Amino acid sequence: MNRKPKIVILGAGYGGMMTASRLKKANAHQDADITLVNKHNYHYQTTWLHEPAAGTLHHDRTRMKIDSVIDTNKIQFIKDAVVKINKEEKKVVLEKSELDYDYLVIGLGSEPETFGIPGVKEHAFSIRSVNSVRLIREHIEYMFANYNKQEEKQEDLLTFVVAGAGFTGIEFVGELTERIPELCEEYDIDRKKVKIISVEAAPTALPGFDEELVEYAMNHLESKGVQFKINTPIKEVQDGVVLLADGTEIKSQTIVWTTGIRGSSIVDDAGFETMRGRVKVEKDLRAPGHDDVFIIGDCALIINEEINRPYPPTAQIAIQQAYTCAKNLKALVAGKTELEEFKPDIKGTVASLGGKEAIGLVGDKKIYGHSASAVKKLIDNRYLYMLGGMPLVLKKGKLNLF
Amino acid sequence: MNRKPKIVILGAGYGGMMTASRLKKANAHQDADITLVNKHNYHYQTTWLHEPAAGTLHHDRTRMKIDSVIDTNKIQFIKDAVVKINKEEKKVVLEKSELDYDYLVIGLGSEPETFGIPGVKEHAFSIRSVNSVRLIREHIEYMFANYNKQEEKQEDLLTFVVAGAGFTGIEFVGELTERIPELCEEYDIDRKKVKIISVEAAPTALPGFDEELVEYAMNHLESKGVQFKINTPIKEVQDGVVLLADGTEIKSQTIVWTTGIRGSSIVDDAGFETMRGRVKVEKDLRAPGHDDVFIIGDCALIINEEINRPYPPTAQIAIQQAYTCAKNLKALVAGKTELEEFKPDIKGTVASLGGKEAIGLVGDKKIYGHSASAVKKLIDNRYLYMLGGMPLVLKKGKLNLF
Repeated sequence: MNRKPKIVILGAGYGGMMTASRLKKANAHQDADITLVNKHNYHYQTTWLHEPAAGTLHHDRTRMKIDSVIDTNKIQFIKDAVVKINKEEKKVVLEKSELDYDYLVIGLGSEPETFGIPGVKEHAFSIRSVNSVRLIREHIEYMFANYNKQEEKQEDLLTFVVAGAGFTGIEFVGELTERIPELCEEYDIDRKKVKIISVEAAPTALPGFDEELVEYAMNHLESKGVQFKINTPIKEVQDGVVLLADGTEIKSQTIVWTTGIRGSSIVDDAGFETMRGRVKVEKDLRAPGHDDVFIIGDCALIINEEINRPYPPTAQIAIQQAYTCAKNLKALVAGKTELEEFKPDIKGTVASLGGKEAIGLVGDKKIYGHSASAVKKLIDNRYLYMLGGMPLVLKKGKLNLF
Repeated sequence: MNRKPKIVILGAGYGGMMTASRLKKANAHQDADITLVNKHNYHYQTTWLHEPAAGTLHHDRTRMKIDSVIDTNKIQFIKDAVVKINKEEKKVVLEKSELDYDYLVIGLGSEPETFGIPGVKEHAFSIRSVNSVRLIREHIEYMFANYNKQEEKQEDLLTFVVAGAGFTGIEFVGELTERIPELCEEYDIDRKKVKIISVEAAPTALPGFDEELVEYAMNHLESKGVQFKINTPIKEVQDGVVLLADGTEIKSQTIVWTTGIRGSSIVDDAGFETMRGRVKVEKDLRAPGHDDVFIIGDCALIINEEINRPYPPTAQIAIQQAYTCAKNLKALVAGKTELEEFKPDIKGTVASLGGKEAIGLVGDKKIYGHSASAVKKLIDNRYLYMLGGMPLVLKKGKLNLF
């Protein structure tokens, strides 16, 4: 019996979604049964989530129905959550069913990294999914609505703490500086009463980023009323209070946790050798010792050999990995054994600071302000173009570049 | 010394606002110093508040800056809260200052009537002010946002209890039937999961209203998914639970209290003879034994002699009282002693049921559906016209009648 091999893709994030899209473009569905599994029936843009979290962009602009982008006649789609990967039996356990695979692609994304700091899981929000960010948006607005109804005004309702001044933290703070004045207007509250506090354990905001750009970003955000507490680790989060290592306390009803991510605990539990949910993959993106398992995106660890440190997990890398992964799957299905090596091509990094402000590096060139903001939007649109062509750009793209 | 008499108007609700407006129109400010006192610098339409409470109309559509309607060069406006009325010394104590008066107009509006039911003040929302209704709007949406993030779904987040099926309760429930489907769409929640429960102690919804109209209203609202619990007093409200007199419990995180209003406790405290904060005023609207104090609106009790029962306090009556009150003040300032008697002229009553549905009585004529809805909007617009002429109708009116 010459049955078609089964390819199962777990997760419809940047990596999984693009892998499915590339396989379909390469007509791989003619030679293999391809199944994409995702918890929701939509794909969302993780790198845009700071915007709906602040309320500056509607969450529907950051997501799209999977079957609007992937031809589900050619790629089977199953809406279900992954419970467990059984790599010895080549099975995946979902909440409602089980799947066999010949080739598995793990693109299960990330989980927030709490570094074991007590109280984070219980008392902090995270910028992680459509569900988590629309809760943040509503929570923030609810604080404003509550403040006005209080007899004794509680200032902690108007104090917003963002833990972590990395990429997501800074981008979220930037959006808050846009959104807070609108909320002040909506609820008749003086802007001066509202505090936005960015707390970072490292000696600088945006660790690893160019110093001049970091200074530009901090100056800009400070001019918009953001207070920075740099070099200040958080010791504990309690209900309504952030305890800092320097002994001070910040009373706040809104703590948003953005201190970084780890890979997926499902990958840990599957018995791969992991570091915080991430597997150091082979050059062809397969898990060491598992020729039938590709791991891409936030669950994959790849080393930047120039500096001998891991690349930070980004959408850019996940998308590039998807291209390689799809090619390699196509080759395997065709009976080839020679696979392509993955080489990241870092085109640049741009962080938005809210509104039409941004900073970034494109190649070696530093960019600032409106032009950086426009480049950021071009990057966002480029992904949509790669995924769904011009129709998707027109539907979901950021078209007002300037 | 021939100083001008001082007229002080407390409260810029329907009664106070219209009294100030009529006095100015009659050029009374030439013969008297007129001062209007209000807690906020805006006037709002109490009878529209069920809409911003549900989120179907923005609260800014229901309010207007006082100085945009009243010429504050002619009528002095003081933004402050009334603490106490000292009628023996003819003084009013405000939070920040004190005022003397020769003539006082009390238009301090109402407070929610809890009938001493335990837990209402602590655990229920009320439809009372711009601040209280935008909190309700945000609270409702916050419940939807929270529901999605829960691991174990709590159905009480999606259960909305409206205590009281009187005018406000029914109108609010009607708006909820419009708003809930939008929120279900926004948060990817099945409409069937959401419960709207209207609880009424009396043997019928809309007590006192025409039976045929009540039936129409209930049928319409039931068709939109509202559950009625009529003839069911509430025994107690606890955190997250409504205990009914019949022994059942409703788990709900959102209880909106609309079982009626009482007058102002400031009027009680001033030493007038009151019934639940209301003074049975003389025919000329003055407090018995106090020739210098007019009481209008929700703090005034007037008897419908045909049935020997008090008129329910409505905006319609408050506005008509303001006309009489302003005329009588003008007469007193001119040294006259013969004052006009107040005679309410009940033109009709229309209750909206959400969207383009309503029921009402205009004279003896029953009206239903879209035409009743249009009449309701005309009534709302008519008030704006009386207060601020066509410019105010254009700015704040409900112009899409059909």
